Amino acid sequence: VVAELRAGIVATGSELVAGRIADANGPWLAQRLGELGVEVPYLLSVSDRRDELAAALTFLADAPVGLIVVSGGLGPTADDLTAEVVAAFAGAELVLDEAMESTIAEILASYAARMDLSAEALRVANRKQAMVPRGALALQPVGTAPGLVVRRAGGPLVVVLPGPPRELQAMWPAALAAPEMASLLAGVRPFGAVSLRFFSLPESEITATLTELGERLDLSPLEITTCQRRSELEVDIRFRPGAEAVSEALVDGVIDRHRKQLVSTDGTTTDEQVAALLTGRRIGLGESCTGGLVTARLTDRPGSSDYVAGGVVAYSNDAKVSLLGVPAELIERHGAVSPEVARAMADGARKRFDADIGCSVTGVAGPGGGTPDKPVGYVCFCVTTADGGVLAREVHLRGSRAEVRERSVDVAMHLIRRAASRTTPS
Amino acid sequence: VVAELRAGIVATGSELVAGRIADANGPWLAQRLGELGVEVPYLLSVSDRRDELAAALTFLADAPVGLIVVSGGLGPTADDLTAEVVAAFAGAELVLDEAMESTIAEILASYAARMDLSAEALRVANRKQAMVPRGALALQPVGTAPGLVVRRAGGPLVVVLPGPPRELQAMWPAALAAPEMASLLAGVRPFGAVSLRFFSLPESEITATLTELGERLDLSPLEITTCQRRSELEVDIRFRPGAEAVSEALVDGVIDRHRKQLVSTDGTTTDEQVAALLTGRRIGLGESCTGGLVTARLTDRPGSSDYVAGGVVAYSNDAKVSLLGVPAELIERHGAVSPEVARAMADGARKRFDADIGCSVTGVAGPGGGTPDKPVGYVCFCVTTADGGVLAREVHLRGSRAEVRERSVDVAMHLIRRAASRTTPS
Repeated sequence: VVAELRAGIVATGSELVAGRIADANGPWLAQRLGELGVEVPYLLSVSDRRDELAAALTFLADAPVGLIVVSGGLGPTADDLTAEVVAAFAGAELVLDEAMESTIAEILASYAARMDLSAEALRVANRKQAMVPRGALALQPVGTAPGLVVRRAGGPLVVVLPGPPRELQAMWPAALAAPEMASLLAGVRPFGAVSLRFFSLPESEITATLTELGERLDLSPLEITTCQRRSELEVDIRFRPGAEAVSEALVDGVIDRHRKQLVSTDGTTTDEQVAALLTGRRIGLGESCTGGLVTARLTDRPGSSDYVAGGVVAYSNDAKVSLLGVPAELIERHGAVSPEVARAMADGARKRFDADIGCSVTGVAGPGGGTPDKPVGYVCFCVTTADGGVLAREVHLRGSRAEVRERSVDVAMHLIRRAASRTTPS
Repeated sequence: VVAELRAGIVATGSELVAGRIADANGPWLAQRLGELGVEVPYLLSVSDRRDELAAALTFLADAPVGLIVVSGGLGPTADDLTAEVVAAFAGAELVLDEAMESTIAEILASYAARMDLSAEALRVANRKQAMVPRGALALQPVGTAPGLVVRRAGGPLVVVLPGPPRELQAMWPAALAAPEMASLLAGVRPFGAVSLRFFSLPESEITATLTELGERLDLSPLEITTCQRRSELEVDIRFRPGAEAVSEALVDGVIDRHRKQLVSTDGTTTDEQVAALLTGRRIGLGESCTGGLVTARLTDRPGSSDYVAGGVVAYSNDAKVSLLGVPAELIERHGAVSPEVARAMADGARKRFDADIGCSVTGVAGPGGGTPDKPVGYVCFCVTTADGGVLAREVHLRGSRAEVRERSVDVAMHLIRRAASRTTPS
């Protein structure tokens, strides 16, 4: 595997290194660069101080990488130092870009009027944001901060983008189109990639399979990574052009051994499959311990109103009875967390929402509420369909309240997928 | 501000630098270290390859930092190289820890039996995970991987923890208790810290306030960071002992200027405030565009079953009518996204769930479904209380479908907070 272009990504912000928020830009940029065939060996978050950003840039230049993408620190506040540090790194003076100053002034004028803000505070911010390293290309602001494309002589190309993810993502096409960036990327050949997803498959089993296949296949041209994403195991295979055959042989071998747990071979997520399977149908949800998370997950997707009729979060027993039609005596006899009540909740949700599919979750999310019989992590699921199909599951999940809830959502999504693939739209 | 102990955090994993998952361990560790008074200038994610992890360790040793915490790469697969690279960094040979091998074997025996796994695959994994740099302290496994505490002679202390967040977090107390770690931390004085939270306050307004206050106060002993977290602006002030008075003066000045938007002065989140205010009461939700996210957010918290009666996700108009009792003619006359329907949904949720407070959200999350009158991002909210209180809001939110939904949840939480602070429990 020959690395053709390597890039480093630096996210700036004291709130990142303090751990108060997770960096969203690094992973997003890494994905975009990976799609283009650029290898990203390093993602860094550094505090807002001059020295740390400067040290990070030097580290990456020495690594060496050919491209550095920096996010954040372009704002109006005193701790926004990125333009200044990048200018010093590139050996260029910081100068006022007058055209950019007017552009920003225009953007701010309408903003100030709309938000009823102090025009003076905005004017000061304005000037600072229009300071650009001499010789750099300034990218048109999406918010109020321009992006920058700066070359360090004999070193990497540096692309600077604003910190707010929405602005950064909106500016990315302009960064790619910048002449220096375009010519850097022109020679890069995209990787080949295959992504396999499995449900309920322990990582040690995949390891054994890869070891076994490695005895008869030369896997060295492949970069294989396995990654547990909650209840799904993702196996990613990336390779330079020329290694298609061995990749294919590996994929066949892996699928052959773990077909029962296979979710997809094209990187499709369970959510995408569920959305496709539900097209032309309607689903109704009855949730207890997941508190609306299953319905929220289904309605994440644009267009989901075509197939999500709705859901009831029946946290209290009264609500299970009055809103989902669960017989009170069923709750009394078996308890609110029981396969019997799960079944009644699924049927109730399906009927109340006049849907084709009903899905329910009831369990003990913890940390309190567990009993010897029904400990924290015990969760019952049921999916019923209008044609009489029933798919039920009882599981014992480990982890914190948040983990039990999250994993319950995963299990529910998989059951919906299985139930929906069994039946055809009415 | 004198830095007493600086630490660098390195998360390993090709899935991290590929951007396929966001690093959860770095932020968590940074918060824990920050609470202890340790400054964290760098968070790094590196790929699974030897050279990148080695380069990252060298970079941090040269920075210099006195402590490096590494997460991940302790697993059984071939790309798990952390122990080996850290051993080389510390100049120590990797040796089999026989006691640890038996410990791991015991853990795996019960796991293999429970999961019906190949004992042979697990045995191979076992031996690899028991290899420890000579002279290092091995920390008891939480999953199957032991942690490591290793000193590089004349350099930083390196603590290695497993990658799965649950295992890493569970092992943290043992890492802190390790003799070398304990003596390193013994001399560190915790920072003073104040955290202010505001709702609906633009960052530029805070900047202006800080500039103004900086003209009459010497703010140099304070480290001030501002951070927009969706609709809340967090202003964090951190300082070494001795700067309490200036911190207090700054806090007073900021609060004085932005009292109306203040959420809390003790770092309390809106969610915590809402939970406290709802104690002794019951809330019912009626959601449309948020698809269950408000109910899910409220039920995130342990003990929320005491005050969350439940919620209805009424995605379809039929469901609004049948499950929330919204008059069909109201939807016909004003549309499903209207203040009138929001009011009826809130009342309906309150009554259906026999609750004291009802809250509703109905809006156009997009990307489709917008009209000139009611564009994407137009969202109506209503909170009604049993004593006749009504709090209504119409907003125009910017951003993607996910952003509109997320921000709608924030607005709903703030309205619930306001409504609940107006009334007293019945």
